[in-house]
Amino acid sequence: MNPKIKWLRDKINMENMQGMIISNPVNIRYLIGVEAEGVLLITRKENFFITDARYIEEVQSILTINDGIIVNNIANISRDDYENFFLFCENVGFEENYITYATYKKYMQRYKINNFEETENLIEKQRMIKDDEEIGFIEKACYITDQCFSHLCEFIKIGKTEKEIAYEIENFFREKGADGLAFETIVASGKNSSKPHAVPTDKKIEAGDPITIDMGCKYKGYCSDMTRTIFAGYVPVQIQKIYDLVLKNELQTMREYKDGASIKLASKMVENDFKLNGYDLVHSLGHGVGLEIHEMPFINGKNDNTFKTNMVVTNEPGIYVPGQFGVRIEDTVLITKSGCINLTKSDKNYIIVDK
Amino acid sequence: MNPKIKWLRDKINMENMQGMIISNPVNIRYLIGVEAEGVLLITRKENFFITDARYIEEVQSILTINDGIIVNNIANISRDDYENFFLFCENVGFEENYITYATYKKYMQRYKINNFEETENLIEKQRMIKDDEEIGFIEKACYITDQCFSHLCEFIKIGKTEKEIAYEIENFFREKGADGLAFETIVASGKNSSKPHAVPTDKKIEAGDPITIDMGCKYKGYCSDMTRTIFAGYVPVQIQKIYDLVLKNELQTMREYKDGASIKLASKMVENDFKLNGYDLVHSLGHGVGLEIHEMPFINGKNDNTFKTNMVVTNEPGIYVPGQFGVRIEDTVLITKSGCINLTKSDKNYIIVDK
Repeated sequence: MNPKIKWLRDKINMENMQGMIISNPVNIRYLIGVEAEGVLLITRKENFFITDARYIEEVQSILTINDGIIVNNIANISRDDYENFFLFCENVGFEENYITYATYKKYMQRYKINNFEETENLIEKQRMIKDDEEIGFIEKACYITDQCFSHLCEFIKIGKTEKEIAYEIENFFREKGADGLAFETIVASGKNSSKPHAVPTDKKIEAGDPITIDMGCKYKGYCSDMTRTIFAGYVPVQIQKIYDLVLKNELQTMREYKDGASIKLASKMVENDFKLNGYDLVHSLGHGVGLEIHEMPFINGKNDNTFKTNMVVTNEPGIYVPGQFGVRIEDTVLITKSGCINLTKSDKNYIIVDK
Repeated sequence: MNPKIKWLRDKINMENMQGMIISNPVNIRYLIGVEAEGVLLITRKENFFITDARYIEEVQSILTINDGIIVNNIANISRDDYENFFLFCENVGFEENYITYATYKKYMQRYKINNFEETENLIEKQRMIKDDEEIGFIEKACYITDQCFSHLCEFIKIGKTEKEIAYEIENFFREKGADGLAFETIVASGKNSSKPHAVPTDKKIEAGDPITIDMGCKYKGYCSDMTRTIFAGYVPVQIQKIYDLVLKNELQTMREYKDGASIKLASKMVENDFKLNGYDLVHSLGHGVGLEIHEMPFINGKNDNTFKTNMVVTNEPGIYVPGQFGVRIEDTVLITKSGCINLTKSDKNYIIVDK
């Protein structure tokens, strides 16, 4: 049997469940490597993937006998079949953070489940800890992203638009063999940089603009995430102080990122230092990165957990002055036993393009 | 007040509700034109949009006093505020098809709601009927897609890869002013065309290949959707029969698409004709198109509703011979009182590229 399914079966057994319904496509991708609409059923003795005619051929070409997954066409499953899947199961788990209230009600009716148990992100929590193959894919995605950044430092000139830069990023990723974007690229220049989630516009880069570039690609399904705020022509004096404060905190955070360290504390340190200087940390300090661009752990002042070896997370403090400008610096980082390894290698000092 | 919000307030009143929580971002985009994470609360007297610091500035720049929406930063809302939103409300609606089971439980606790009512896709149903502005945007998206198809008929040559063609499509959309892709483009050649949902690969186009291209762009948020199966060099004899059968059914379906006609019947006619010829219709005959690429109405043999004037839907019969090839032909269509208007203008007869 596929080792991730084996892990899951052991885990649900330990939690006194005899089955589980997995509906979240990212979790299904993680467990069995399949990207198709469908639902994965872990029953007392067997594992079923129920999909529809559009995907049957492809799914069967990916799964092997060693995966131990029975593939079913949803069109061939009768009402009795549904009722039999979890016969003799006391407790069956479901993904309460993924399925809608309406689907919950439908599952309750369809599967005739005795006790339908919330599984509290069982699989998402396992996904936090990356194996060697996953780390390799993320490293590759980060490497392509670093290359892209080097290219941009030459490519960006005064007069280019934010959209032109965003398109260049996407094309670069493709040419270098990435699957595509990990998320919609942010290129926010001048005043636009004051919006943490700005969308690229037709605004042209002007001399003195800060340019915040938040970008990432996917490689074999796994994401990278980096942000730099760079400058066109020169670094305006009033931005320097804030840039230095953000960078200081980013570097300091790197020393807090290690196995066993408090996630809450890492976030609180930045929040406090920003407050002392009259600013707020208006978004999370970071998040896990993997098959999803934002996944567990979420690094903020409310997370009571600790960092663990082989988590991959971002470190991304930012300060935004409404209507004026913003600065964010972000790396993708691998947590290790004694500290962390920065998978994003690009320079973080002042970078001036089109000098 | 914004007329869509006014419609919604009247509608929920008619359904004997005094409030509603709207969480689906597409519905929020539809109602108030805002693309930001957050939740829209319709309360007895007021309308609130609760978002976070990342979006406050942008949302406030989009909404005007005439919208009648109070924008709140989630960080400033106390437990009491939450309890007060729906004070004196008997029935409050929620989107049972959007919010997760976990969010449902959270809302129940947070808002202290007496009776939390399922709203059965109230807003999604309204979104089915497009107004003039929406139709204009979809027409424009379809026009760009037709232009793209003309370009592809010149661009595609034997030896080009599926991925190269997919990238060309995306670049073309951008150059012509589309927001971007409406969905991941399908370019499936030769045997790959037998998978209705194939992902573009590095396979090169070969002489005699059928090439199924399923593509669409977004314009001002609204989608287009078209599919053509074209041929490289020549049309293989064994595919002609199936092509003709698919095309015959696509054209016949156009005559069934009109205000008041049965959705189920349109689908059953194609199913039956395919069956008579020894094939199955393995996916829906079509779906609504709007802010989402797949939205209501879903055109299949289980839908008991009728077509209505100003719905925009696809017409996309397809036949797939596993391991061999597939043919799909798809247009985006506006339903009118007396029939329908095909918004996709591209040719549907045999198209041979690189002759």
